[in-house]
Amino acid sequence: MGKKLKLGIIGAGRIGRMHAENIVSNFRYVEVKAVADIFADKIKAWAEELGIKNVYKDYKNILEDKEIDAVLIFSSTDTHAQIIIEAANSGKDIFCEKPIDFELDRIKQALDAVEKANVKFQIGFNRRFDHNFKRVYDLIQEGKVGDVHIVKITSRDPEPPPIEYVKSSGGLFFDMMIHDFDMARFLTGSDVTEVFASAAVLIDPAIGEAGDVDTAIVSLKFENGALGVIDNSRKAVYGYDQRVEVFGSKGCITVSNDTPSSAVLSSAEGVISDKPKYFFPERYKDAYIEEMKAFFDCIINDKKPIVTGRDGLEPVLIGMAANRSLVEGRPIKIER
Amino acid sequence: MGKKLKLGIIGAGRIGRMHAENIVSNFRYVEVKAVADIFADKIKAWAEELGIKNVYKDYKNILEDKEIDAVLIFSSTDTHAQIIIEAANSGKDIFCEKPIDFELDRIKQALDAVEKANVKFQIGFNRRFDHNFKRVYDLIQEGKVGDVHIVKITSRDPEPPPIEYVKSSGGLFFDMMIHDFDMARFLTGSDVTEVFASAAVLIDPAIGEAGDVDTAIVSLKFENGALGVIDNSRKAVYGYDQRVEVFGSKGCITVSNDTPSSAVLSSAEGVISDKPKYFFPERYKDAYIEEMKAFFDCIINDKKPIVTGRDGLEPVLIGMAANRSLVEGRPIKIER
Amino acid sequence: MGKKLKLGIIGAGRIGRMHAENIVSNFRYVEVKAVADIFADKIKAWAEELGIKNVYKDYKNILEDKEIDAVLIFSSTDTHAQIIIEAANSGKDIFCEKPIDFELDRIKQALDAVEKANVKFQIGFNRRFDHNFKRVYDLIQEGKVGDVHIVKITSRDPEPPPIEYVKSSGGLFFDMMIHDFDMARFLTGSDVTEVFASAAVLIDPAIGEAGDVDTAIVSLKFENGALGVIDNSRKAVYGYDQRVEVFGSKGCITVSNDTPSSAVLSSAEGVISDKPKYFFPERYKDAYIEEMKAFFDCIINDKKPIVTGRDGLEPVLIGMAANRSLVEGRPIKIER
Amino acid sequence: MGKKLKLGIIGAGRIGRMHAENIVSNFRYVEVKAVADIFADKIKAWAEELGIKNVYKDYKNILEDKEIDAVLIFSSTDTHAQIIIEAANSGKDIFCEKPIDFELDRIKQALDAVEKANVKFQIGFNRRFDHNFKRVYDLIQEGKVGDVHIVKITSRDPEPPPIEYVKSSGGLFFDMMIHDFDMARFLTGSDVTEVFASAAVLIDPAIGEAGDVDTAIVSLKFENGALGVIDNSRKAVYGYDQRVEVFGSKGCITVSNDTPSSAVLSSAEGVISDKPKYFFPERYKDAYIEEMKAFFDCIINDKKPIVTGRDGLEPVLIGMAANRSLVEGRPIKIER
Repeated sequence: MGKKLKLGIIGAGRIGRMHAENIVSNFRYVEVKAVADIFADKIKAWAEELGIKNVYKDYKNILEDKEIDAVLIFSSTDTHAQIIIEAANSGKDIFCEKPIDFELDRIKQALDAVEKANVKFQIGFNRRFDHNFKRVYDLIQEGKVGDVHIVKITSRDPEPPPIEYVKSSGGLFFDMMIHDFDMARFLTGSDVTEVFASAAVLIDPAIGEAGDVDTAIVSLKFENGALGVIDNSRKAVYGYDQRVEVFGSKGCITVSNDTPSSAVLSSAEGVISDKPKYFFPERYKDAYIEEMKAFFDCIINDKKPIVTGRDGLEPVLIGMAANRSLVEGRPIKIER
Repeated sequence: MGKKLKLGIIGAGRIGRMHAENIVSNFRYVEVKAVADIFADKIKAWAEELGIKNVYKDYKNILEDKEIDAVLIFSSTDTHAQIIIEAANSGKDIFCEKPIDFELDRIKQALDAVEKANVKFQIGFNRRFDHNFKRVYDLIQEGKVGDVHIVKITSRDPEPPPIEYVKSSGGLFFDMMIHDFDMARFLTGSDVTEVFASAAVLIDPAIGEAGDVDTAIVSLKFENGALGVIDNSRKAVYGYDQRVEVFGSKGCITVSNDTPSSAVLSSAEGVISDKPKYFFPERYKDAYIEEMKAFFDCIINDKKPIVTGRDGLEPVLIGMAANRSLVEGRPIKIER
Repeated sequence: MGKKLKLGIIGAGRIGRMHAENIVSNFRYVEVKAVADIFADKIKAWAEELGIKNVYKDYKNILEDKEIDAVLIFSSTDTHAQIIIEAANSGKDIFCEKPIDFELDRIKQALDAVEKANVKFQIGFNRRFDHNFKRVYDLIQEGKVGDVHIVKITSRDPEPPPIEYVKSSGGLFFDMMIHDFDMARFLTGSDVTEVFASAAVLIDPAIGEAGDVDTAIVSLKFENGALGVIDNSRKAVYGYDQRVEVFGSKGCITVSNDTPSSAVLSSAEGVISDKPKYFFPERYKDAYIEEMKAFFDCIINDKKPIVTGRDGLEPVLIGMAANRSLVEGRPIKIER
Repeated sequence: MGKKLKLGIIGAGRIGRMHAENIVSNFRYVEVKAVADIFADKIKAWAEELGIKNVYKDYKNILEDKEIDAVLIFSSTDTHAQIIIEAANSGKDIFCEKPIDFELDRIKQALDAVEKANVKFQIGFNRRFDHNFKRVYDLIQEGKVGDVHIVKITSRDPEPPPIEYVKSSGGLFFDMMIHDFDMARFLTGSDVTEVFASAAVLIDPAIGEAGDVDTAIVSLKFENGALGVIDNSRKAVYGYDQRVEVFGSKGCITVSNDTPSSAVLSSAEGVISDKPKYFFPERYKDAYIEEMKAFFDCIINDKKPIVTGRDGLEPVLIGMAANRSLVEGRPIKIER
């Protein structure tokens, strides 16, 4: 293997720590050389146990370290664009958790910086690396469904997030359905041209009071002529419901939820099987590792990332259109 | 059992003959006393073999037969309203194949006549009697899904109908999705208030040239706050795809397709199971019998039909709104 | 169609009446001309309603009716052999409920008479006509599993029969597993050469006191080299459990139980689907019709029956070997 | 966490290396301090990359290291008993790959040494830690099946091992079905009292020439009255087939195979889903980690191992009885 790939991690909240631990456990050809977090003191013990030698309060220390090849950005969304720009200017390859930003201008500035610096850039749409969705994608690529006619995506959380989160997250279309917008583009291989959103507050009135919805169905039209529909709910009592269906001229592919086991109990009460894995940490456990593997592979073998800057931008455009559709009660065309 | 229930069948095309045969085979407490068809000559041998003694060219002969308790109308759609009115005026209970008519005025006239005559009236939405959909309905009634939030209906045919049929059928929303509009109302127990239709010609340009679409996704809003979505395709290469999913505050119910057998072959090529039953005669074989059973039960035990005149009217309203939504490119509210 | 096939039914207990009703409802080219039952008085009203004109106390009246083409024997097992012999001598084609008899000599006499008279003879192993097992058979015939290596059959009843029945039925190997012995021969296309039975009384001590077992596993060796295993239980609390698995050089086929519906409810309690259809009348409803269809087809089109006299004899030989294996605690070779 | 648990690994063949890598990646509270292998030179680079500082040719170096808490024995089977004895005498806790030995005397000597030294001892029946089988066990413990009546285990490999392996492995009952013997005891919670083996050479005559069989069905009786059956095949063309079914007075639990994805493709050819995961490294990937976790947990929290020395002995007794049953053509009682 020779020299190890050297990383700096910016942001060590829940998701940042998960990624750091995944990397230390799974990629012996990679070294996490430094981690930066505004609460640097709080993560020192954790970093030490992981064998990360440098813990900074200021991410600029990472950007200044010439030995570091790439940065992983897991800080709060409002810092993403600025850090991307600086990291790109420092010549670091970049992995950034989604979304890049909520403002189009800032997203474009960040992507411009990336392009100018000609660094690798991957955005954290981890579901593309899920074994089920990846398999759907592969089967489509192999021509098994022929031309795609209809894409249906179901995404339902086991529990609504805290109301505070709802207030600042950008709303259901941005904190939740944005993954499905990306999935729709990934599977069809086509951009979305028109969006119609239908939504309601059926689970918790407090979500409505916070200006958001908790149940939504969004119709999509794609550039290649296909039609799509996504449904989201903030609360599925049976757990995390993550399915897709792709129908085309040669067939239809569906995926069902992953479960903790395949055990089926037949009793006088009925035939009972496991509920889906509870939430994203369980369901996408391996996908989080796979997306890192793909990022490292891009850097080491000089490949184009599977999830590009434009893949980070487009779902934001769709989410904005969905929000506008909901407000105006009509379908919205996406302008680029 | 006492006296047999005496029926007259009006219209002995494919669907009329199927019903007649079902009745003769399955309901010994019912007698098909007469059948009327404009091609009376062509059905004589068939009627004789079935033991139907009277074959008429003119359906009025049936209406004039005092012994006949009920009529089943399987003639062409444009004759439905007129025959319903006359049959109601003759005091016959009525089963009528869907749709009642394409014109609202004529539907209302027919339903008025039924109401005035106070006869039983059942419309032929046979899928309500399908073992799978009936079970979904029952589970909802038992409160297993709690409040309904989302209804998703998939309905795809194995083959497009002949272009001639497309030209006169009223189009996909009337000849195909109308069943799904009924299913949506049946499962939610609520009326549709708003419709947004998205559609395309992806299978056969000739369908587009005939003024129709072959692929469609329709979003629905219900009076009770629920959201719905229906997708239709004229051609699923794997056979008749008929599924529903109902999601609510306490759970989610899905049904999968019926198959000829449960055999699963694991081989070097993969794990292969049966395709869905090919088309509606196979899939809804028992449902056609069950809907008759329900109709006879209404008459014999003086019950309210499960599918009423209003159930015949509402899907037509939804279909009209869907057509208008498609033309105008916006959601359409349903006015009553 | 021309002349109808004319039948006489001997024995109008539960199974005889079911078959008579199936025939009247499903085969318009067949006429049940007469029925004979020792309790002739009790079945008159039923026969009349079905349109069966002649009801006899003595089955000989049926055998003497020159117009009758075939007889269906549903009388008690101890009368089968005698009636078969007389019916064969009368030149009638014969359908006989399984088993032919419990005595080898009598079985052979009956089959000799059939052979001498050169009449059609079909034994009532209805499961060969079940849509699932028939599909397994067909896939094997198509070569999908290659050479058969292992056959596994599961057969469990929802409830034990009355103790009185157990005492006279010949025991589990004769009243229950005999169907599975037939299935094993049907699917492998090979005779059984050796049997080892392992059994216990785990459900109801009264069954043990009656001299029978309620739980059994039987290992089989086949002439073609394949191995087999059958497990039976008198009581599966979740309903009638009827599955087979055939494993071979090119693949493995499994069938699962039929259910009333495909509805699956995901709730906080788990993912719940339907129990199997309750018992044989529900599960084998269509198989009973299909076996009649096959019998009539043999007569009308002069074909060899799918279930022959030898197919009636062999499972009895296997059952005897199983009983002996259980008593002697060792594998028993089948002598022919 | 305090002080890390220190391990020595004895034997760094394929299975030993897999475990070492699993431990380094997944257990930061554990340190692999040393590895011993007779081909020490060949594993130095690998050990260095893993951060294992000491590589020995002689395992005695590990036993002499006072700092090492526990040893993991992955050397060839014929060395197990001797190393267990020495390790026990050195006061080390012991994890040993199955089987302990092929000779009863040597197994007992090893277990005696373990008992006298009062060290922890866990045998490598990894399948007890598989998410599916563990779930079956848990459901049984929760009383969901009531009293166990029937256990059925299917275990089929995707490919036969090399003939050289077959010659020295002890044969199918020892190299393959021994896992199933353990599973049978694990799930029923009961010892086996009688064994009847039925087997054949159906896949490769060379296996027969080597004195082994490639297809086998073994019937079991358990101390608690339950019955069992295991079927094995050396070659399932569709991949590694690992299923169990436990039937009892209150219900039946089945588990199906794990697959790479849940994708189902419906096409004109049929409905196709994934084959099972290919072989044990894929299927039991997580189980290998879980068994280590359980072993470390026993040591750190002073618990009784889940798989004990007696659990290592009993399957050998059953395997011996199976071999004898096959030779003598009769059921064999197990003497203890």
